[in-house]
Amino acid sequence: MRNFDQFTITEAVLERIANAPDPRVRDISAALVRHLHDFIREVRPTQEEWARGIAFLTDTGHMCSDTRQEFILLSDTLGVSMLVDAITHDHQREVTESTVLGPFYVEGPPEVPCGGRISGALSGQPMFVSGSVSRPDGTPLADAIVDVWHSDEDGYYDVQHPGDQPGRHAGLVARARLRTDAAGRFHFWSIKPAAYPIPHDGPVGRMLEAQGRHPWRPAHVHFMIEAPGFERLVTHVFAAGDAYLDSDAVFGVKESLIRDFVEHPAGAAPDGRTVDRDWCHLNYDFRLSPVSETASRAA
Amino acid sequence: MRNFDQFTITEAVLERIANAPDPRVRDISAALVRHLHDFIREVRPTQEEWARGIAFLTDTGHMCSDTRQEFILLSDTLGVSMLVDAITHDHQREVTESTVLGPFYVEGPPEVPCGGRISGALSGQPMFVSGSVSRPDGTPLADAIVDVWHSDEDGYYDVQHPGDQPGRHAGLVARARLRTDAAGRFHFWSIKPAAYPIPHDGPVGRMLEAQGRHPWRPAHVHFMIEAPGFERLVTHVFAAGDAYLDSDAVFGVKESLIRDFVEHPAGAAPDGRTVDRDWCHLNYDFRLSPVSETASRAA
Ligand SMILES: [Fe+2]
Ligand SMILES: [Fe+2]
Repeated sequence: MRNFDQFTITEAVLERIANAPDPRVRDISAALVRHLHDFIREVRPTQEEWARGIAFLTDTGHMCSDTRQEFILLSDTLGVSMLVDAITHDHQREVTESTVLGPFYVEGPPEVPCGGRISGALSGQPMFVSGSVSRPDGTPLADAIVDVWHSDEDGYYDVQHPGDQPGRHAGLVARARLRTDAAGRFHFWSIKPAAYPIPHDGPVGRMLEAQGRHPWRPAHVHFMIEAPGFERLVTHVFAAGDAYLDSDAVFGVKESLIRDFVEHPAGAAPDGRTVDRDWCHLNYDFRLSPVSETASRAA
Repeated sequence: MRNFDQFTITEAVLERIANAPDPRVRDISAALVRHLHDFIREVRPTQEEWARGIAFLTDTGHMCSDTRQEFILLSDTLGVSMLVDAITHDHQREVTESTVLGPFYVEGPPEVPCGGRISGALSGQPMFVSGSVSRPDGTPLADAIVDVWHSDEDGYYDVQHPGDQPGRHAGLVARARLRTDAAGRFHFWSIKPAAYPIPHDGPVGRMLEAQGRHPWRPAHVHFMIEAPGFERLVTHVFAAGDAYLDSDAVFGVKESLIRDFVEHPAGAAPDGRTVDRDWCHLNYDFRLSPVSETASRAA
């Protein structure tokens, strides 16, 4: 265990972790060491480049707070999040496709009854969102939990607006938890979200710039849907026609998740309400995947 | 740029970074994406494991402060630091070997004249350190900068002792900057350092435990030596006979860097001083590598 060269060092580290008590920890650690060392041997960093790598990771960590997750942004922009998504969701044609969680989900969003308006004092074009949750065969799922969150008309999430207290945001808005009714349906009012750049005033923004990339995502509404006996669905619905559908900074777009946000003139809405200006309507019918016997035992 | 599977996602990310203005950034980014995606495809993490990975990196970043560099500890314990060392230092037999910098170097250490004592109020066995700095052919190098730092008899560095002010340490001790004299020689007094565990009260410590590893390093004195026209040498001298020489937590040991810390009874020391208790003597003669034409142009 002395005098390693650039090849024997890898064997030495692998030997050292061979006795990890948990075989999964051992396998993940061994794969990490092999691939990380391969990366270093390919790139042949100078000591200065190594130090810049350490500084980049440190800055990324220091950027993380209760309302900012820079490592998720890094995972998203390097395509890792969508790769994990692809691995963990073998696409079944009859269930709704998943996409990245993103860094803006907040645990325990405000509970809102169906038909409620979740946009608080935000200005913007009124948006009526309706949808359903069902089994793969179309049988409705009542009382499913539907979490939604989206950006405002300027492309910002609520948690990006600083509040009065340091580290606190101004209040949760354009996000909610709803439940499907007996027919498996839900609906609510909000405002139409805008395309937005992912937060790019930190290390990940500097990385994107150095890589010659823009930070934009096409306009979308996030959904996270849970029902007992079904796999949790984490997805978005994207606005058809958005300029960034083919260059999403986090590689999250899937054809099956694109919908028209249908424009309507002022007048009557599907829930009987009268809207005094133009508004849009987004509808999406979600189908959840039943938990498999194996997965349910593992959970 | 839509509907990626677990293989096409990698091509999509590579395509996106193909226009990075700096070719080195492009190459490093592309290698990172390929190896990182290979790692993910091999390990096939669950969403829960991905989230734990994000949390690990976040915790590691939050652990970093002015006096704690958890990402360097991570690089060191995964063998990355020694791999970079091996890549950047093709070993030439006639010059002193390098090893890891470690997380405890402090910029601008206290300047101490040759013969000075650097251990302040620390208790421990007196240690007389002597040495020389020369060219590969043995020609002495006068006025070379010799930075030294080491642990105390309990295995702690000065910066690990909290001071009165938050985030400040109690004072720099057992570290110094010396200069070689006209004969290329230096000497100073300190106390004998102990073997120590790397700081293991953070994420890296939890990783080592999960991997079934101990966090110990054999006793050593750090040296960083600079002279104009020569490559900066970053190395340690390890204590012969130490129990951890064959299982250094950071893989830093090289045979050529091990020396006896020779024990002496109370009495006269080489610098004419009389020591009233047993003491030890460490001597190391360093040889620096001249900066090559190419490297000097690049710098
Ligand atoms: Fe989003
Ligand atoms: Fe050390």
